[in-house]
Amino acid sequence: MKLLEEHIRKHGTVLPGNVLKVDTFLNHQIDPVLMQAVGNEFADRFKEVGITKIVTIESSGIAPAVFAGLALDVPVVFARKKKSLTLTDNLYTSSVYSFTKQEANDISVSKNFLASTDTILLIDDFLANGQAVLGLLEIAEQAGAEVAGIGIVIEKSFQQGRALLEKTGFPIYSLARIASLDNEQIRFVEEEVVQ
Amino acid sequence: MKLLEEHIRKHGTVLPGNVLKVDTFLNHQIDPVLMQAVGNEFADRFKEVGITKIVTIESSGIAPAVFAGLALDVPVVFARKKKSLTLTDNLYTSSVYSFTKQEANDISVSKNFLASTDTILLIDDFLANGQAVLGLLEIAEQAGAEVAGIGIVIEKSFQQGRALLEKTGFPIYSLARIASLDNEQIRFVEEEVVQ
Repeated sequence: MKLLEEHIRKHGTVLPGNVLKVDTFLNHQIDPVLMQAVGNEFADRFKEVGITKIVTIESSGIAPAVFAGLALDVPVVFARKKKSLTLTDNLYTSSVYSFTKQEANDISVSKNFLASTDTILLIDDFLANGQAVLGLLEIAEQAGAEVAGIGIVIEKSFQQGRALLEKTGFPIYSLARIASLDNEQIRFVEEEVVQ
Repeated sequence: MKLLEEHIRKHGTVLPGNVLKVDTFLNHQIDPVLMQAVGNEFADRFKEVGITKIVTIESSGIAPAVFAGLALDVPVVFARKKKSLTLTDNLYTSSVYSFTKQEANDISVSKNFLASTDTILLIDDFLANGQAVLGLLEIAEQAGAEVAGIGIVIEKSFQQGRALLEKTGFPIYSLARIASLDNEQIRFVEEEVVQ
């Protein structure tokens, strides 16, 4: 997605350890105009597959997800993150390990908001090691919901997440795919001819 | 705001201890159409006062805030919540006590995203004891930013928050004001003739 790549080039900063900081428009400060374009792009890609619900994780997934939800006219559910859950009654839960923070968080979704009748689109802000999306997939499986696709705002294609998700067989649509951050240079994956 | 009050009446549930659950459309599952209407309503109320930035708190403030940001064409910043902050370099911080969870959280905003040149609109999903908004006001003060108003989606007018915020003198616009939840009945504050 050209507009997003331009924002990443212009406002993203590369920190040591292959960290891409995009907190001027996605992770801390949010650019609503860009997020609407991002949400519309996801909606456009998945509008024919009968999505009934969008599922994301707090907090940075919420903005792109609500705009996709608006465009598809479906509700959005965000999984909550907690160090550890004490009460798990009526919750679907999964444990997600963060390599950057080196800690595990439990994520959860109320059983009231996901059912086996749902066809869901998973949306997240970043795909790096893939643990967060795998956690969402586990929650979808617990609910018996059908996963129609995975929408990622920024994918670090050089980390293991993409490969892990491809093994699941679900359609993945990443709006910006970063091939490398070496030498503090942002290089995008070249567009494939066939999507 | 009539549409919001209808949603609260239809989908809200009252739990013991004056708790109003609205997680079908605001706190866990999000109704994007309603959130857009909410955001537009805030934008309409504060469109003449030169807002340069909207500030909210993760996670439930984000959806209404991004739609207000879209309508006003300004960026949104969400304060992050943490049990305790270890690194506070380059952060505005404030401690917020939650009466419901009986714990304090530090909230923070990067100094990169708030400045003394900003005129801000604070948005939050709930006003009960007012501690979260007071925390945001403290952060605004640290930044030297001007606060042009406070937008609240649902106010529990029978708790102390409203009175505490009124003392600050900033304009408060609550879209739904709940007078009482006694006997598990939701009663709204009667509309005032003069806004």
